Amino acid sequence: MINGSQLIAGTESREGYRSFSGSNPRTKQPLPQLFFEATHQEIDQALKAARVAFEETRGYPASWLANFLEQVAREIENLGDQLLQTADEETGLGINRLAGERARTTGQLRKFAALLQEGSYVEAIIDTAQPDREPTPRPSIRRMLFPLGPIAVFSASNFPLAFAVAGGDTASAFAAGCPVIVKGHPSHPSTSELFGRAVNRAVTEMSFPPGFFSLLQGSSIEVGRTLVTHPDLAAVGFTGSLRAGRSIFDAVAARPKPIPVYAEMGSLNPVVILPGALAERSQAILEGFIHSLTLGSGQFCTNPGLVFLINGQETVAFADDLTTRMADLQPGVLLNANVERGLADAVDQTLVHPAVERLTGGDVIDGRAYCYANTVLRTTAAAFRSDPNLQVEHFGPVTLLVICEDEADLLAALSALHGNLTATVHVGEEEGELAGRLLATLREKAGRLIWDGFPTGVEVVYAMQHGGPYPATTAPWTTSVGLMAIKRFMRPVAFQDVPDSLLPPALQNANPLGIWRIIDDHWTQDPAVEA
Amino acid sequence: MINGSQLIAGTESREGYRSFSGSNPRTKQPLPQLFFEATHQEIDQALKAARVAFEETRGYPASWLANFLEQVAREIENLGDQLLQTADEETGLGINRLAGERARTTGQLRKFAALLQEGSYVEAIIDTAQPDREPTPRPSIRRMLFPLGPIAVFSASNFPLAFAVAGGDTASAFAAGCPVIVKGHPSHPSTSELFGRAVNRAVTEMSFPPGFFSLLQGSSIEVGRTLVTHPDLAAVGFTGSLRAGRSIFDAVAARPKPIPVYAEMGSLNPVVILPGALAERSQAILEGFIHSLTLGSGQFCTNPGLVFLINGQETVAFADDLTTRMADLQPGVLLNANVERGLADAVDQTLVHPAVERLTGGDVIDGRAYCYANTVLRTTAAAFRSDPNLQVEHFGPVTLLVICEDEADLLAALSALHGNLTATVHVGEEEGELAGRLLATLREKAGRLIWDGFPTGVEVVYAMQHGGPYPATTAPWTTSVGLMAIKRFMRPVAFQDVPDSLLPPALQNANPLGIWRIIDDHWTQDPAVEA
Repeated sequence: MINGSQLIAGTESREGYRSFSGSNPRTKQPLPQLFFEATHQEIDQALKAARVAFEETRGYPASWLANFLEQVAREIENLGDQLLQTADEETGLGINRLAGERARTTGQLRKFAALLQEGSYVEAIIDTAQPDREPTPRPSIRRMLFPLGPIAVFSASNFPLAFAVAGGDTASAFAAGCPVIVKGHPSHPSTSELFGRAVNRAVTEMSFPPGFFSLLQGSSIEVGRTLVTHPDLAAVGFTGSLRAGRSIFDAVAARPKPIPVYAEMGSLNPVVILPGALAERSQAILEGFIHSLTLGSGQFCTNPGLVFLINGQETVAFADDLTTRMADLQPGVLLNANVERGLADAVDQTLVHPAVERLTGGDVIDGRAYCYANTVLRTTAAAFRSDPNLQVEHFGPVTLLVICEDEADLLAALSALHGNLTATVHVGEEEGELAGRLLATLREKAGRLIWDGFPTGVEVVYAMQHGGPYPATTAPWTTSVGLMAIKRFMRPVAFQDVPDSLLPPALQNANPLGIWRIIDDHWTQDPAVEA
Repeated sequence: MINGSQLIAGTESREGYRSFSGSNPRTKQPLPQLFFEATHQEIDQALKAARVAFEETRGYPASWLANFLEQVAREIENLGDQLLQTADEETGLGINRLAGERARTTGQLRKFAALLQEGSYVEAIIDTAQPDREPTPRPSIRRMLFPLGPIAVFSASNFPLAFAVAGGDTASAFAAGCPVIVKGHPSHPSTSELFGRAVNRAVTEMSFPPGFFSLLQGSSIEVGRTLVTHPDLAAVGFTGSLRAGRSIFDAVAARPKPIPVYAEMGSLNPVVILPGALAERSQAILEGFIHSLTLGSGQFCTNPGLVFLINGQETVAFADDLTTRMADLQPGVLLNANVERGLADAVDQTLVHPAVERLTGGDVIDGRAYCYANTVLRTTAAAFRSDPNLQVEHFGPVTLLVICEDEADLLAALSALHGNLTATVHVGEEEGELAGRLLATLREKAGRLIWDGFPTGVEVVYAMQHGGPYPATTAPWTTSVGLMAIKRFMRPVAFQDVPDSLLPPALQNANPLGIWRIIDDHWTQDPAVEA
């Protein structure tokens, strides 16, 4: 079933000669299946086919796209245990976690299908004509969103199902009516191929044009760069490291015709824990924090890598307990050699700082598996404020405690924060006044503010905002999780005085889709009435 | 009243030593008032003050911002005839046109005020908690839009009121709650200063922080470059040429922290006129077309610079009539020496093409005023398809007729179009089937599709889309005219499990603002009820 092919518009292709393979992170042993770097010609074929497919799918009714998404979800479920076993072998994430991630993956496909069936996501806005206006009549203007065109999606290593071949970026681009060319992550190529074949089956079964989906494999930056600079591409979705994301952003900005890059590049996810919160419920916070910090061996973009505490008895006790518990906890398996090496390098660089202290961990665990010790570091707010290098992400089970002298020191440190996906506060009953100021400061620094909780666990709901100021993302006005993610792959077009019969259904007078629209500045599901 | 100062956060500044002045386009004579290039230090002062102002205004209720916009409109009206006379002296656009443009300028400020008072523009979305969900409870997630931060606005030369100091970009950024630093256009610096002082008075009267607005003058690219690369800037609004817009886009893309650039850079605004339409109403189309083409001496971003016709008797007659009428028509005054030179160079380059024929015009009119002959050029669809240089904008009263052999030739030529702000079709009664295909093709090429009309005249309404694929704009998913323009200067933030009392009013259970929200996937003005 898995043979190392590129899946290009429904056909298998093996033109490349440079090969690579995944490896088992529990044994560091390469896996037997060979994969190949997609060639320039294969990439061009995928884009050309996507362009052709888009000529059709851009006009598909939302209900067809919804049916397709539901079929993709069914095809993923049809992969059965093989999917979980293959992904587990390539990522070491464990069958239980992967089963949960599969449910998330099919769940978000179905949520987008429901959004399409409801239909109001196209943002239909109608301003009716005013033929008697002086000095000139006002025309009828009607606007809605349309799909952008072929989208490149770069899979993430840490969510081999939910942020990968048929993950959130792909689901939202498909939902918009856009063909997708996935660049599979080289750390789990067999999982990618399984997913790719499942999507292909849905394309066939629903009689979609074959170019609606392609999967390209590759381990070099060359494949990605060729893909994002292709003239037929309309936008890029990316989840990964700041270095890779910025490199894609820069390559795209230099295109003759620039296109949007929706890159989610990682985050420190600061957690503020005030003394009153520790006095009231230190143990509950500690349990929740450790769970969040070590989930998936810390390999989450929402991993809480930074904790702000105000010096005092409760804080000293919390840091001690955290250190003891983290030292005792069995560290998990990391995804691959790159993650292990990147984490070790990042922590080593942080530890060079004279004001950073290692409370526990800080080492690679030599052994059969890729593994890094559970690590707690400590520094001062003064050091944090003065050195932006202390805001480098440690992608793994590592957190940095920033000890502040008092509330003013805390607020000053928070003001120095770079952009993040999330920010969290734990506040005591008597600390409400400060809480308001914390939220106001953190609102400028993050896309999601969490109260008395932890940043891992990103709900796929309409209101989710998974995105934040740079360097968390390149497009903080968008989200890569939740239903609003579809908007990234659409653009508005207005119709002026176009006859009703030639308008798309969403803009026709009768409102045949029954959607919510803004007509002459008012929200309504009623028909539009031209004067 | 006008003294050539920079207006920085409510204070006058004259640190620069490099001076420039406007000139009267009707006489080519420089005007007496000297202005100065803003210095690096002045630019930095404006940004620092904007940053400070934003700490306050980011928390202002929408009603305060609405009152401020209305006060700006009143202050513009209070400028009285001096504004029109000054703008006319600097631009040669004429008092009547400028009076209309003033009404548009104050009208759009008041439209944004009404949008704020209604309040639903913040896109409030609420997903209530599901405490009993298995395997883990679902938290409450609530999302809305917040202002981005200090915005740089680059004034356009061709709309000295409506796309300038207090024009659409500034109005929409203010409406979002963002401080604005305007880079005034060097072609009308006195007009800019008058506007700047009017905005300053509104800032004072409404007790807004002085850094909410600054006006920087300059004629070099240096001022703009320093402004857009300043670390405190959050976004850029720009209206002008492709070359200047792309240069700003490139400078911003290279920032350590990239920010959005909303650049509207010009457009050819193709008009398709089918034989049936000419057979039915050739004279009406001719009148409307000439009016649109010569309005403001053709210096509109929506000027119809490209016409697609199918060869035949009606088309030959239309081209002949158009040529005769354009040759007879008195050409208008151009804005300045740069526009005249740029237009002459662009037409000269087009005329080098062996397949381009000059039907009338093609020359600078020597005389007292900046002026260019009304110009009609003609080429073939085959030539148009094969040479992208035939899609260079001629900013002035110039249009290029593209003669197609038949419908297939027409559709192929339209498929070769680059991005445009608008596209227009004129269709006969019997040409409905082709009309559908035209609209489907043109939808991919433009932001606004016009039926039986002309592209000039951009209504400031909720449904307006003034933006299109590159090179028309750098951000085709946004509009620079109409109420949705406010979204460019906002970004979403989600609140997870935050207590009701600490939420912004738009997200509180009771819905104290009475706005439309999406609660658990349904549109409603009802309160939210947590389980």
